[in-house]
Amino acid sequence: MQAARLHEYTDDMSEALQIDEIDRPDLERSDQVLIEVEGAGWCQTDNHIVEGMWTDYAPQDLPMTLGHENAGIVAEVGEEVTLVEEGDPVICHPVQTCGICRPCRLGEDMYCENSAFNGLTTDGGFAEYLQTNERAVIPLPDGVDPTEIAPHADAGITAYHAVKKAVAELNPGDTCVVIGVGGLGHIGIQCLDAMSAADIVAADIKADALELAADLGARHTVNSADEDVASVIADLTDDEGVQQVIDFVGRDETTALAPNIVAAGGDHHVVGYGGHVHEPSQALVDGEFAFRGTLVGKYAELQELVALVDRGDVELRTERHDLADINTVAERLEHNEIEGRAVLTPP
Amino acid sequence: MQAARLHEYTDDMSEALQIDEIDRPDLERSDQVLIEVEGAGWCQTDNHIVEGMWTDYAPQDLPMTLGHENAGIVAEVGEEVTLVEEGDPVICHPVQTCGICRPCRLGEDMYCENSAFNGLTTDGGFAEYLQTNERAVIPLPDGVDPTEIAPHADAGITAYHAVKKAVAELNPGDTCVVIGVGGLGHIGIQCLDAMSAADIVAADIKADALELAADLGARHTVNSADEDVASVIADLTDDEGVQQVIDFVGRDETTALAPNIVAAGGDHHVVGYGGHVHEPSQALVDGEFAFRGTLVGKYAELQELVALVDRGDVELRTERHDLADINTVAERLEHNEIEGRAVLTPP
Amino acid sequence: MQAARLHEYTDDMSEALQIDEIDRPDLERSDQVLIEVEGAGWCQTDNHIVEGMWTDYAPQDLPMTLGHENAGIVAEVGEEVTLVEEGDPVICHPVQTCGICRPCRLGEDMYCENSAFNGLTTDGGFAEYLQTNERAVIPLPDGVDPTEIAPHADAGITAYHAVKKAVAELNPGDTCVVIGVGGLGHIGIQCLDAMSAADIVAADIKADALELAADLGARHTVNSADEDVASVIADLTDDEGVQQVIDFVGRDETTALAPNIVAAGGDHHVVGYGGHVHEPSQALVDGEFAFRGTLVGKYAELQELVALVDRGDVELRTERHDLADINTVAERLEHNEIEGRAVLTPP
Amino acid sequence: MQAARLHEYTDDMSEALQIDEIDRPDLERSDQVLIEVEGAGWCQTDNHIVEGMWTDYAPQDLPMTLGHENAGIVAEVGEEVTLVEEGDPVICHPVQTCGICRPCRLGEDMYCENSAFNGLTTDGGFAEYLQTNERAVIPLPDGVDPTEIAPHADAGITAYHAVKKAVAELNPGDTCVVIGVGGLGHIGIQCLDAMSAADIVAADIKADALELAADLGARHTVNSADEDVASVIADLTDDEGVQQVIDFVGRDETTALAPNIVAAGGDHHVVGYGGHVHEPSQALVDGEFAFRGTLVGKYAELQELVALVDRGDVELRTERHDLADINTVAERLEHNEIEGRAVLTPP
Ligand SMILES: [Zn+2]
Ligand SMILES: [Zn+2]
Ligand SMILES: [Zn+2]
Ligand SMILES: [Zn+2]
Ligand SMILES: [Zn+2]
Ligand SMILES: [Zn+2]
Ligand SMILES: [Zn+2]
Ligand SMILES: [Zn+2]
Ligand SMILES: [Zn+2]
Ligand SMILES: [Zn+2]
Repeated sequence: MQAARLHEYTDDMSEALQIDEIDRPDLERSDQVLIEVEGAGWCQTDNHIVEGMWTDYAPQDLPMTLGHENAGIVAEVGEEVTLVEEGDPVICHPVQTCGICRPCRLGEDMYCENSAFNGLTTDGGFAEYLQTNERAVIPLPDGVDPTEIAPHADAGITAYHAVKKAVAELNPGDTCVVIGVGGLGHIGIQCLDAMSAADIVAADIKADALELAADLGARHTVNSADEDVASVIADLTDDEGVQQVIDFVGRDETTALAPNIVAAGGDHHVVGYGGHVHEPSQALVDGEFAFRGTLVGKYAELQELVALVDRGDVELRTERHDLADINTVAERLEHNEIEGRAVLTPP
Repeated sequence: MQAARLHEYTDDMSEALQIDEIDRPDLERSDQVLIEVEGAGWCQTDNHIVEGMWTDYAPQDLPMTLGHENAGIVAEVGEEVTLVEEGDPVICHPVQTCGICRPCRLGEDMYCENSAFNGLTTDGGFAEYLQTNERAVIPLPDGVDPTEIAPHADAGITAYHAVKKAVAELNPGDTCVVIGVGGLGHIGIQCLDAMSAADIVAADIKADALELAADLGARHTVNSADEDVASVIADLTDDEGVQQVIDFVGRDETTALAPNIVAAGGDHHVVGYGGHVHEPSQALVDGEFAFRGTLVGKYAELQELVALVDRGDVELRTERHDLADINTVAERLEHNEIEGRAVLTPP
Repeated sequence: MQAARLHEYTDDMSEALQIDEIDRPDLERSDQVLIEVEGAGWCQTDNHIVEGMWTDYAPQDLPMTLGHENAGIVAEVGEEVTLVEEGDPVICHPVQTCGICRPCRLGEDMYCENSAFNGLTTDGGFAEYLQTNERAVIPLPDGVDPTEIAPHADAGITAYHAVKKAVAELNPGDTCVVIGVGGLGHIGIQCLDAMSAADIVAADIKADALELAADLGARHTVNSADEDVASVIADLTDDEGVQQVIDFVGRDETTALAPNIVAAGGDHHVVGYGGHVHEPSQALVDGEFAFRGTLVGKYAELQELVALVDRGDVELRTERHDLADINTVAERLEHNEIEGRAVLTPP
Repeated sequence: MQAARLHEYTDDMSEALQIDEIDRPDLERSDQVLIEVEGAGWCQTDNHIVEGMWTDYAPQDLPMTLGHENAGIVAEVGEEVTLVEEGDPVICHPVQTCGICRPCRLGEDMYCENSAFNGLTTDGGFAEYLQTNERAVIPLPDGVDPTEIAPHADAGITAYHAVKKAVAELNPGDTCVVIGVGGLGHIGIQCLDAMSAADIVAADIKADALELAADLGARHTVNSADEDVASVIADLTDDEGVQQVIDFVGRDETTALAPNIVAAGGDHHVVGYGGHVHEPSQALVDGEFAFRGTLVGKYAELQELVALVDRGDVELRTERHDLADINTVAERLEHNEIEGRAVLTPP
């Protein structure tokens, strides 16, 4: 089968991956599942993996097939699988977990001690077939197209997970700032709108991103290329700041906003990871605010996001490309030229 | 009356404050209360105020009487006060709040929009008398000595507040690291021990501080001058890290421990504010941990801490000094020479 | 001034209250506020008070002016009031709280130990003027009409409060049943819709109430006069039951639904109080469900509800009547003939 | 092998179970585990099962081996089991869960949709061998005796689970009432004492149970045969009531205490299931209290309880009996003659 594989870390996205002809994976355990991939989203994290930025955090053996945002049709199941059968359309949570370790038992399956992460620590879905397991697949409701929903497997649940943490702290009349209205941000705004009655302020440097934000439910938009975000927030909130910030960018200049825009007791959720957090301890103490790192969402959260999609509350902006064009997609995202999300479709 | 006042910011603690003869405060509102001060704790924050480190965060008119950890006897009450009367022994929460603004209505009185902070934004308790209000005083149970309990008004509730946030996340079998076993840390360990069944690991650079920690309930101690804290934690926790860290130091080198010692999903509570937090966003994302700033505790938390003292669960280590010796105390704390907490007793 | 007062408990609503000419209240404390009443909602609780059903729960001296759902214009303020001034339009939280007792300090002002409840334990707002205090008034945003918003002072925040407790437990894909789509229920459905992405099922015995529910955001409606609620819920939820039930009726037959419709770990919120809860302990244990009593919402929750109204998320259905017609209103509510909420307007 | 089996429901405990010679179970799935039973606790629930009291709640095919509180040594493992191996000492959570359904994924494994409950819906541990699965076994720390710890598998985690829910609501200075100091209650008091700084009040009708309660950490004891519990609580709490009640009895007369002893906003946790809850809805509303049903604890909670045992925080009072004497044990518990917990030891 065809698979787009990383052979060497590189900063040149035009030669990021190589289309190889490899064997279709065999199932080896009673709980494994083989998926015929219908769609696989390309993600900023893929660029970071190609650059070698994850080698300190995750074990990687090259060559490796990338692709962690997958959906498709069940092609084969291990002998003790009961959740799905051949022919079922599914979305694939990117992490195959054990169900046995204490984090799994607490429902915190993203902290599983025996996990494999598609396209990050094990072969992913930029390929005709993907091997995963029963605990990583979610059957799709009737009428939901696997190709269309694929990016929710990571972009979607990462945005959803951050939003869910924020929503738990937001009351009607509170304000939430969303920084960055790209692949994740445009999902995050829709989730916020569906799940809370807080006022949403969207910040970005592109006018059309801000227009999209307003369409999707933002009450106010700030172009951070032109305007001083902190002043705008001070005006909007009577100098009190906002209860929650969801930072889908995570650069030095966005995290540096925290002391000036977060209200006392609030949170600055760090989702994007382009730069650093850097503040005097006194600033955190004085405002009693937190920088809260935010990982990919859990399996149960992907179920909840599928429910939001099924209700019509969240819609993805996607464009589709042949697997063969994968490096072009990589380059375009590097240059911030993709609106919404690009999905690769294997042959 | 005598009052120890700050006239000019300085780094020289030997001339930090000046004992002035000033008028005893008059009560001007129906809810105000005048306290004859029996004890006033000297705090690291007082050194920071003297150095001018709070001018960016809090409005200050000099000269100002310092002292935010006060207890004493009610000397006079405004005409609508019902909670206390002349002669009642009380501990004084350091912040006089309004009871009207939204944060006050939410019970988040530390975020009050119309507050005065004793010894930080208004005259404090290094004096014979202190003016405060009904919402800032807590009657003491029989048998509790005001001089003895005074430092709980800030050191105590700050430690308690951080511990309470940590305890909400700690299960039996989990581990909590306490960094810094000084004035706050030695209270924090006792609160942790009383309120949770987590294993406590104490880290400090002084052997006798660690001995005290072990006496007060720490299961393990680490001398961070000699040992690598991260390795010790990795050994103790099977490489998983600890669920919660309470950092009473807040220096660059203590906050830098977070990515290496905090378990996935855990928190590094920043209580001390000697330095910075500085990490790649990716570290926070990968470990889904948070740096959570922690302020002084609320009024209701001071009630809870008084209950802990009354139960015999928390004991302060204090030494007493005449108000006249206040600058000597300031110098000794600067040189890390005070065990537990120093309390000033006005004439 | 004119005031509608209860002189004697009675089951005959045609002579519930008597319009008396009494003195306008004087302000006696520095924090009191006098309101010229613009609107006062009539409530099922008023019928219950007239019947004497609250004598076991609340101290009452007759004659007493009823009316706990009030809004109007500030006519006079005590000398230390800062939140409002003469001429400000406000909505009045029904409970005047002290701001001093521990529940008040925790933000739980409905549990205040020194409170007065308008129209239940002290004179209420079925009158030209109402005496209340600073901690009980909320300034209205521009464009919000006091007469229109008055019922939110109790009907609104009681519904909101119950919904907020339910929303904390609801995820997208979960289901919430609302029992009773009257004065409270029709507000509750709108709050649920604005604050969560759960599926709402409304149950009532009147076809037009169910039609209203569908208009306001319910996904499914059940006429409990014709259909077996438990069967409908079983069908809708694959036999699992619903995560949350908000029971605005609280009769024997509605609380008896709990074991058959609440999913494991879920809650049956008891808001209405027409009957009893009565179940074997084993039923609660086996399903690990709870009967959770629900009181009027807090002051801060009324602020949040005003924000929802200001956003356009919640709209009241009201009809207006002269104060003189108050007993006719009482009778019509007794016979379940009022759609939405009746508001009395004093002369 | 020998197994004590229920052939017919009966109220006569002298012929409750019959010792049969049956086949040792075979492992049929890759995740199953066979345990050589070292100890199996006899429980009030066993009496209830024998009486047929669970037939409405759980599917049962007779004859069935009872026994849900088991610990022992791993005798055989399915081929994909990794958590344990032959010879490991383990405690057995009573419920075999699937790890696949949504409740399992949320960490709520007690609500598993595909579960088997040892000794309630499938053969249990009053036998030489017990078949269970990998998700139901917890390896024991060195030095913990399986026979001694067995009752924690249900009595322990049920008490622990209720306590954990209560502790989340308890602050220092608050009060928690424990009703019933038997097999569960004596564990519950120890968990409360280890995990909170609330004051514990124990109520029972036996003097020696109250003495045990005082030894284990109760501050106050009430003999409800002689004293009026509500008056005692009113005196102890200045008429405010207690924040939490844990009712290990669950009879009509114990649940009826709630409106008179639970403080506003508090909870009455129903753990025992001897009778009914029966109150006017108005009582729940007026006091905003809840009756919260409480089931067996989760797997992760059993891990936490094992940690408490390992720390020395919780100690069981047990007596041991041969499997052959099982009906005598059943009779003695029926007559309330067992102190602490009886453990059966198979041959
Ligand atoms: Zn991704
Ligand atoms: Zn795992
Ligand atoms: Zn830096
Ligand atoms: Zn201090
Ligand atoms: Zn305030
Ligand atoms: Zn009402
Ligand atoms: Zn109060
Ligand atoms: Zn009954
Ligand atoms: Zn049991
Ligand atoms: Zn399951």
